Amino acid sequence: MLKVFGDHRSGNCYKVAWVMNELALPYEWVDVDILAGESRNPEFLALNPNGRIPVVQFSDGRTLAESNAILLHLAEGSPLVPDDAYQRARVYQWLFFEQYSHEPYIATSRFIVQYLGNPADRQADLNAKRDPGYAALTVMEDALQYAEFLTGDHFTVADIALFAYTHVADEGGFDLSAYPAILAWFDRVRLRPGFLPMRAT
Amino acid sequence: MLKVFGDHRSGNCYKVAWVMNELALPYEWVDVDILAGESRNPEFLALNPNGRIPVVQFSDGRTLAESNAILLHLAEGSPLVPDDAYQRARVYQWLFFEQYSHEPYIATSRFIVQYLGNPADRQADLNAKRDPGYAALTVMEDALQYAEFLTGDHFTVADIALFAYTHVADEGGFDLSAYPAILAWFDRVRLRPGFLPMRAT
Repeated sequence: MLKVFGDHRSGNCYKVAWVMNELALPYEWVDVDILAGESRNPEFLALNPNGRIPVVQFSDGRTLAESNAILLHLAEGSPLVPDDAYQRARVYQWLFFEQYSHEPYIATSRFIVQYLGNPADRQADLNAKRDPGYAALTVMEDALQYAEFLTGDHFTVADIALFAYTHVADEGGFDLSAYPAILAWFDRVRLRPGFLPMRAT
Repeated sequence: MLKVFGDHRSGNCYKVAWVMNELALPYEWVDVDILAGESRNPEFLALNPNGRIPVVQFSDGRTLAESNAILLHLAEGSPLVPDDAYQRARVYQWLFFEQYSHEPYIATSRFIVQYLGNPADRQADLNAKRDPGYAALTVMEDALQYAEFLTGDHFTVADIALFAYTHVADEGGFDLSAYPAILAWFDRVRLRPGFLPMRAT
């Protein structure tokens, strides 16, 4: 059975649990406590030399890291990854956007506030994440004004990847009240039969 | 004909020029000067609302952003993107690694030093990028000790994506002399018939 190494508080790990739920696939969850250094010990580094969660391990022992790579791989062949070449490419575009222009601001702010306890010596760092975080939300808002989901009429792994940290952006201090298209998209996503809520932190 | 909107000094844009050379595809290059604000004007934001280069525009007017999404899309069906599902997924893993764990440190250091002229008020930022940058290089070094290319015996778009900024890491102050497997990989990559050198900055 597939093993998922992760932390339920992490949006990147939540993506993987959710896609397994969408695909109705069984899996074993192995908790990794990053604050206790468990993603940097030799056993974990053998799974992912980059020392980051989530990692999945297949029954043959092979491993795969990077949450969005895991989404694409597990959902290949399902409606969550489009067949059309251009639509696939737009999914890729959103997945790279998420990791480069969104996660480092939206998710990391939540990490500083929720995991690290919002320490005084991280306030300048937190403040520096505000503008680029809101810029990423604006890009999403613009796209969602014209479409039901990020790449168009169909829900894809891009929606899973972006929902994961956007729906808890408030936990990092982001105010979503000026983003009505994002809030309406939250409601549409939550209506999916395969939707999995994030565990309360 | 495909149009590439980019800046020849940018490694992310260089990736796109190189993959077009590998695939022997014609294209039109449109220079975008990001320091002059040309990636933030209304005409450019219509191509990519995220205001980043590179962007490609197909002959039907549709666009695609995010360098690694462009690589995957353009090279689909060529030997640069593996057919085997797991090997493809490992390419995805390296592409997301590049954008999350490598580019923000290796490429951004070069940007600060070479584009911005290494200003005094960015020295703390530059110093903070040292350790994570070297950590990313170590992940690459470990992988390249056991394989000719990042995902194994075959050159893929993962090698294009990681070569782009790694081979000019020294321009951002990174010393590669302790990374012999990376240096040997540089030599193998440069021997490819489809290799395109980066333009001198």
